[in-house]
Amino acid sequence: MGYTDKMLRDDALKGKNIVVTGGGSGLGKAMTKYFLELGAKVAITSRNLEKLQGTAKELETETGGTCLAVQCDVRHIDQVEAMHKTVIDAFGKVDILLNNAAGNFISPTERLSANAFDTIIDIVLKGTKNCTLTFGKHWINTKQENTNVLNIVTTYAWTGSGFVVPSATAKAGVLAMTRSLAVEWAKYGMRFNAIAPGPFPTKGAWDRLVPGDLKEKIDLTKKVPLKRAGEHQELANLAAYLVSDFSAYVNGEVVTIDGGEWLQGAGEFNMLEQVPKEMWDMLEAMIRSKNKK
Amino acid sequence: MGYTDKMLRDDALKGKNIVVTGGGSGLGKAMTKYFLELGAKVAITSRNLEKLQGTAKELETETGGTCLAVQCDVRHIDQVEAMHKTVIDAFGKVDILLNNAAGNFISPTERLSANAFDTIIDIVLKGTKNCTLTFGKHWINTKQENTNVLNIVTTYAWTGSGFVVPSATAKAGVLAMTRSLAVEWAKYGMRFNAIAPGPFPTKGAWDRLVPGDLKEKIDLTKKVPLKRAGEHQELANLAAYLVSDFSAYVNGEVVTIDGGEWLQGAGEFNMLEQVPKEMWDMLEAMIRSKNKK
Amino acid sequence: MGYTDKMLRDDALKGKNIVVTGGGSGLGKAMTKYFLELGAKVAITSRNLEKLQGTAKELETETGGTCLAVQCDVRHIDQVEAMHKTVIDAFGKVDILLNNAAGNFISPTERLSANAFDTIIDIVLKGTKNCTLTFGKHWINTKQENTNVLNIVTTYAWTGSGFVVPSATAKAGVLAMTRSLAVEWAKYGMRFNAIAPGPFPTKGAWDRLVPGDLKEKIDLTKKVPLKRAGEHQELANLAAYLVSDFSAYVNGEVVTIDGGEWLQGAGEFNMLEQVPKEMWDMLEAMIRSKNKK
Amino acid sequence: MGYTDKMLRDDALKGKNIVVTGGGSGLGKAMTKYFLELGAKVAITSRNLEKLQGTAKELETETGGTCLAVQCDVRHIDQVEAMHKTVIDAFGKVDILLNNAAGNFISPTERLSANAFDTIIDIVLKGTKNCTLTFGKHWINTKQENTNVLNIVTTYAWTGSGFVVPSATAKAGVLAMTRSLAVEWAKYGMRFNAIAPGPFPTKGAWDRLVPGDLKEKIDLTKKVPLKRAGEHQELANLAAYLVSDFSAYVNGEVVTIDGGEWLQGAGEFNMLEQVPKEMWDMLEAMIRSKNKK
Repeated sequence: MGYTDKMLRDDALKGKNIVVTGGGSGLGKAMTKYFLELGAKVAITSRNLEKLQGTAKELETETGGTCLAVQCDVRHIDQVEAMHKTVIDAFGKVDILLNNAAGNFISPTERLSANAFDTIIDIVLKGTKNCTLTFGKHWINTKQENTNVLNIVTTYAWTGSGFVVPSATAKAGVLAMTRSLAVEWAKYGMRFNAIAPGPFPTKGAWDRLVPGDLKEKIDLTKKVPLKRAGEHQELANLAAYLVSDFSAYVNGEVVTIDGGEWLQGAGEFNMLEQVPKEMWDMLEAMIRSKNKK
Repeated sequence: MGYTDKMLRDDALKGKNIVVTGGGSGLGKAMTKYFLELGAKVAITSRNLEKLQGTAKELETETGGTCLAVQCDVRHIDQVEAMHKTVIDAFGKVDILLNNAAGNFISPTERLSANAFDTIIDIVLKGTKNCTLTFGKHWINTKQENTNVLNIVTTYAWTGSGFVVPSATAKAGVLAMTRSLAVEWAKYGMRFNAIAPGPFPTKGAWDRLVPGDLKEKIDLTKKVPLKRAGEHQELANLAAYLVSDFSAYVNGEVVTIDGGEWLQGAGEFNMLEQVPKEMWDMLEAMIRSKNKK
Repeated sequence: MGYTDKMLRDDALKGKNIVVTGGGSGLGKAMTKYFLELGAKVAITSRNLEKLQGTAKELETETGGTCLAVQCDVRHIDQVEAMHKTVIDAFGKVDILLNNAAGNFISPTERLSANAFDTIIDIVLKGTKNCTLTFGKHWINTKQENTNVLNIVTTYAWTGSGFVVPSATAKAGVLAMTRSLAVEWAKYGMRFNAIAPGPFPTKGAWDRLVPGDLKEKIDLTKKVPLKRAGEHQELANLAAYLVSDFSAYVNGEVVTIDGGEWLQGAGEFNMLEQVPKEMWDMLEAMIRSKNKK
Repeated sequence: MGYTDKMLRDDALKGKNIVVTGGGSGLGKAMTKYFLELGAKVAITSRNLEKLQGTAKELETETGGTCLAVQCDVRHIDQVEAMHKTVIDAFGKVDILLNNAAGNFISPTERLSANAFDTIIDIVLKGTKNCTLTFGKHWINTKQENTNVLNIVTTYAWTGSGFVVPSATAKAGVLAMTRSLAVEWAKYGMRFNAIAPGPFPTKGAWDRLVPGDLKEKIDLTKKVPLKRAGEHQELANLAAYLVSDFSAYVNGEVVTIDGGEWLQGAGEFNMLEQVPKEMWDMLEAMIRSKNKK
């Protein structure tokens, strides 16, 4: 089978109710679609209700599943609590929370105001915290077990990265929250995991803006050993595994799916890829002759 | 679905030929069985041919698949090369190598001779290296692409651990090899990943030896937030995902499946689990009264 | 020399002006004192001006150095900017920023409100960000080079930890900021590093509250292989090294000083420390006899 | 003070006897020299006795200290034991072991034979293990406390790296050994730490061989945010700290001294350094105008 095929057995998520924040577009939408195909009911949230409702309708038509659009700005705890109530009212219970809503500024850090920086922390870190506290306390209070939370982070959550520092900062916080609650709240029947995706195709303003020669230089797929971006279904397959019962013994883990990108840059001598075959031949000959002496 | 159910679509590994070192028993056998059920042909290797042949026959009967038993001490490059030739002769090609063969001494390090220490390095690290070099060079020479290597490591590959120091040392080496070749050999169409399993049930001499009160103290499942050992099918599900094409964008990654065990010990304040509810009530009351002032 | 002796050559920080947030007490005060002894001028900040002024006077008397007390709640960017201006007015320039101000709730996470959680993020993560942006932009604008930022984090910044989840979350963010700016702002002559301290003695309400038998169970020094807490001078020695020019090639690094605490819990078999000598003897005899066969 | 100045107080290592494997040249020699200047007696070892004796004489002349040259191939446990005995006979006791001896092949991995790969594992990993076991058991048997072991590793011990895979593999093993024994042998009064150096200047065949245009491309200092290689004294300062009593609470730690090199490659968006100021201006203007709507 190919890597864009669907992985899990039919009905693998049957009976599961899932909330996907930021589920209206991009990777959130791709994961939502696959969850629906696997039999789950999914509520998707974002600030833009109109767009969200469009996505929900589209996905219901495509999959025959149940997709609920709920407006919510995750930065505000009262909106999160209202969203939670709406979903509980509609679905009866929620089993899985996927914290996918995010924001990012790609910018030299010295061009960011303290407030701009805060905005990303508020969406990514406080937003994830607001949802996690709200859903988690409810699961504890209602003694609902076999639940889990999946957080979308980045590879620069642990390495850091320039030019996306607010995001790096906030995602690192999300990763620590994942690992902390994986231990502390395990006794309540919850699991916590994360995915760190590398470059997946998106249609952003960035692409239209960057001039050709620069685009060449900063092409993310060049940094990937596999020399390609990921396909949405590849991420959806991994996410479906991690929210399903099949991963019941995976807890506190972050799974990277980036084709090896971060490792290529990190490893000190990986740039020797640029040394041509002829030079390796020459070096080898030299070493051999030296060893003979 | 429950966590001991089988995860992947039928025929997910159809057309794949796999070599599992140390495949005659334990976790290696469990993974082999599931690969066979998913349609792969599997060659299993170990030093004990008789036991290996018994396992192969048993698995063929149970699954209706093709399982080849090949004797091989992975410490010796000539035996590895002969094993490789035998499998190629039988199967035509190999697509996937699972380095699972291992050894371990559980012992205070000062009781180990330099030679005993070497034995574990030779089996685990040099054995993995022997297999990886042999299979990898063949894939390069024959220009066979879409291949991958899965290595079984441990969580103490990065944290280290007393009392299993030779194994910690060797498994750390295997992990670095995984990450190094994931980048360097990606251009040849190979992927490299690893699994770090926590406690999975095994029937060892250890269990019979340890007296009851001590067994209580050193019970590994107590260190697991989920309070249980893993089931073999849970590991098999993860392994099948990582060797299949479904994980084609996962490269250079180690996935931990330990219920959160290593994190429970690592996090500085996780032992506060032992603080009773009443004391938290008291602390909370104190803080609230202090804040009022 | 003993480990409570002072490490660096005399005058190692002569000519350096340093700001230590949270410098009025505890570890911040200990580091400040040593910086003064090494010839630096130090401004200390916290919310409590009276206490801060007492500390400044005390340290000036003890060391003969110059210590400036500046009130500042690091959560508020305007207060941070005012603090920065005050120090620049007094000292002419600042060379080193030590982000040490912090807050923490030790509590089961389900007992925390979303707002309480935010308070820690605001002090630790946004506070560090506010100071870093303010000082960093000034260094960039004035083209002052050879500056550095040292951040105090924790070992649970990367492992996570239950019962201190807001702090784990915020400190992880600080660590990612450290690593991100170490790369991005290196071109402006800044370095960024962090220290992750393990248990150092403090006189907190905690100690007075915890009953004796529980204190025994949750005694942090028991988790330390070295079986002791750290001494303030040990942290001060490391901090002085990291802010001094002697560490000019250390950049983006977090140095852990915890006696090995986090590793003891993390390593899977470290609890075998509890196995008595006699049992190891027995196991060894058994293995030897088995190998003879 | 500048970063090539000497850091520690005079006599900081007085009364300490140190063994530095691979101490005859390069970084080993630089560290040895500084240890001598700080009052330690040092034994240096390598395979080449003649060169070693030259270095010992040179260093004694320069520093007025005591430097003993002892021939030893660390791959062989009997040679290590003999070396240990020689040093004990000469110095009475040893306090500190610095495992610095190493080997490396810079080569595409598919060009390495299984035996060539073994050579590096034997020197780096088994060599370090041979020395550590020999010295550690002696310290245990003679109940000598306040000892420590410092291991030189690399940043690719945890990230891996292509083209130096045997070294990556072996150094990862050394790092795991460091962390394992830091916990297990702490009860015997030993500490274990490691240093991961980035690019430090060496005069190798490599430099003479590589043609100019390629040298430009694979120039390691370009990967360093600080845009320079390290100076030997910078490494010596850090090493002296870590073997001295001043670092008595640092245990199981690896300190990276690479100017931020590995982080620069690892962070996903660090390559945006190549985006010119004008384009950031344009992006910023676009975002502002969009936000106004």
